[in-house]
Amino acid sequence: VKHYSITLLPGDGIGPEVISVAKNALQLIGSLEAIEFSFKEMPVGGSALDLVGVPLPKETLSAAQESDAVLLGAIGGYKWDNNEKHLKPETGLLQLREGLKVFANLRPATVLPQLVDASTLKKEVAEGVDLMVVRELTGGIYFGKPRGFSTNENGEEIGYNTEVYAAYEIDRIARIAFETARKRRGKLCSVDKANVLEASMLWRRRVCEIATDYPDIELSHMYVDNAAMQLVRNPKQFDTIVTNNIFGDILSDEASMITGSIGMLPSASLGESGPGLFEPIHGSAPDIAGQDKANPLATVLSASMLLRYALGEEKAAKRIEDAVLDALNRGYRTGDIHSTGYTLVGCKEMGEEVLKSI
Amino acid sequence: VKHYSITLLPGDGIGPEVISVAKNALQLIGSLEAIEFSFKEMPVGGSALDLVGVPLPKETLSAAQESDAVLLGAIGGYKWDNNEKHLKPETGLLQLREGLKVFANLRPATVLPQLVDASTLKKEVAEGVDLMVVRELTGGIYFGKPRGFSTNENGEEIGYNTEVYAAYEIDRIARIAFETARKRRGKLCSVDKANVLEASMLWRRRVCEIATDYPDIELSHMYVDNAAMQLVRNPKQFDTIVTNNIFGDILSDEASMITGSIGMLPSASLGESGPGLFEPIHGSAPDIAGQDKANPLATVLSASMLLRYALGEEKAAKRIEDAVLDALNRGYRTGDIHSTGYTLVGCKEMGEEVLKSI
Ligand SMILES: CC(C)[C@H](C(=O)O)[C@@H](O)C(=O)O
Ligand SMILES: CC(C)[C@H](C(=O)O)[C@@H](O)C(=O)O
Repeated sequence: VKHYSITLLPGDGIGPEVISVAKNALQLIGSLEAIEFSFKEMPVGGSALDLVGVPLPKETLSAAQESDAVLLGAIGGYKWDNNEKHLKPETGLLQLREGLKVFANLRPATVLPQLVDASTLKKEVAEGVDLMVVRELTGGIYFGKPRGFSTNENGEEIGYNTEVYAAYEIDRIARIAFETARKRRGKLCSVDKANVLEASMLWRRRVCEIATDYPDIELSHMYVDNAAMQLVRNPKQFDTIVTNNIFGDILSDEASMITGSIGMLPSASLGESGPGLFEPIHGSAPDIAGQDKANPLATVLSASMLLRYALGEEKAAKRIEDAVLDALNRGYRTGDIHSTGYTLVGCKEMGEEVLKSI
Repeated sequence: VKHYSITLLPGDGIGPEVISVAKNALQLIGSLEAIEFSFKEMPVGGSALDLVGVPLPKETLSAAQESDAVLLGAIGGYKWDNNEKHLKPETGLLQLREGLKVFANLRPATVLPQLVDASTLKKEVAEGVDLMVVRELTGGIYFGKPRGFSTNENGEEIGYNTEVYAAYEIDRIARIAFETARKRRGKLCSVDKANVLEASMLWRRRVCEIATDYPDIELSHMYVDNAAMQLVRNPKQFDTIVTNNIFGDILSDEASMITGSIGMLPSASLGESGPGLFEPIHGSAPDIAGQDKANPLATVLSASMLLRYALGEEKAAKRIEDAVLDALNRGYRTGDIHSTGYTLVGCKEMGEEVLKSI
């Protein structure tokens, strides 16, 4: 029997509900595949703020660092929106990414045939979309220094941040992106703003340099404003996209909305070594929290990514994915992806259907 | 007879073709409305680089500054893509914006009933979209200092830029946005990343402060990643959007693609005083340059914005807009917006049809 330790971070809003479903799925697949999981649940985000006054307690970070992988629900909520920066739930998430050194964020955006109608895009545009955004996650303007508030030479208040990339940061994310493209359809589009920003000029230069090690991958470059357009015009043109932290934040959310079912989309954040961080791409949805309405499938699919990328348990990962598709094929839908003719279920019941399918 | 001086900047690619059509439209409307235009044509962008070695010749900037308004075609092309920064066509455009101090970029995204099918979004999602992005244009990461290349403490090469806003820069763009919303449907959405960036925190704080002068406007705030999603999910929820330079670059392009007809969309860039800069939002389209295939309507509509915003010639502005709609109603379409049942025309012929409609 193999043994893995998993840190569960339910977080805020619908986080606890969806994590509970994913935990059940992991436990069941474990019993079927001779894998033993030990789970440790720790607070993060707003719930950690309420509990102990900081968004990422030291104990949470060390538990995460010592485990084999981390599964996160969601963080944030209106309640803490006006907190000072160091007391924002989001700051806890950023500290967690930094603390785990997970610089590569993989965010697939796939339009499932079962859910093509959920997209606001025309069927012929949405159908068959299958792209992966590889977002740099621990650098750029999110972490760059100097940052803060000050006054300029006229005594005016200013707020400022630094967009900065070092060559090694670009090189390592570029390698992950080329490797990812190689396992997919062999096409990589690097997105930047190299016609204006020096940080992007270095980005483009390094990506071109790393490309010489991947002659089998078809590399292209696109400005970020054009990429935002092309995702709407013809998302099928993309296979793998690699971009910096802030552009990745924007474009991966845009790409996920193009699928029409962001309640279905998982993500994986990986480092050089050490535990990866797995989380649904949707937010904490405070308006429906605690009402058993959330779609747990993005978190279940994040657990599947965890099995694949963190533990190398491909078979178990695939079984979970198949179970999700099977539950969809049997007609079960949570509110966010429901349409007439399908069976509307809550978070728990959807979880039970996935377990049946496993 | 009123007299106005207009600087024409055809620029690169399809720029000269579309400017020529817009000039004809201005001339005709002038003769009908007792307005006399004197036009001065000057080089900018790649064509200025080829001609005199800089992307914004001094003579071009002073001609622009001394005129009543500036009409620009498009700039850029593959040929100059690998130029050093100070020799990029884009740098000429940025210098022009800075030199004219046009800090407010108004970019409408409207789905015309005639062209609703051109959108990749489902008809019920696209139809009726009518939003305006007010983008800050002379600040933020485009112009912030320090910027450049350097080495970090480990001897690694770095590229860096500074996102910085001073209170007065936010205040003046916020006022323009509130005024714009007031002339529209009274709703303003300010887009930022205040959960992460200090520059955005100041942005949000100042926008809230300015809002006290506009109690009649319904103000909301949205994070940029969410805005990128909401534009795809339900673009009709937006009336006026105000945001910083880089977020505005991305979101306004996304919004324009949602209309499906970026060959139709004009823009206006305005300062505190002095001549405004008017240009289509599409690029220089080097692949179809010189082939009489470009859609001149975005530039014609930019000329209409010029009449309205720079010269206060509302009647002439309206006549041009109506003429564009009339040419569409009579079934004429350039390639980018063509579908079966309509008359496919080139750039020149479309221009002639607009003149007939005037
Ligand atoms: C919550 C926020 C800090 C975060 C980010 O901007 O990275 C989120 O939008 C995401 O994409 O995971
Ligand atoms: C050409 C480029 C410098 C420019 C910008 O980024 O502002 C363009 O994308 C625009 O939106 O006008």
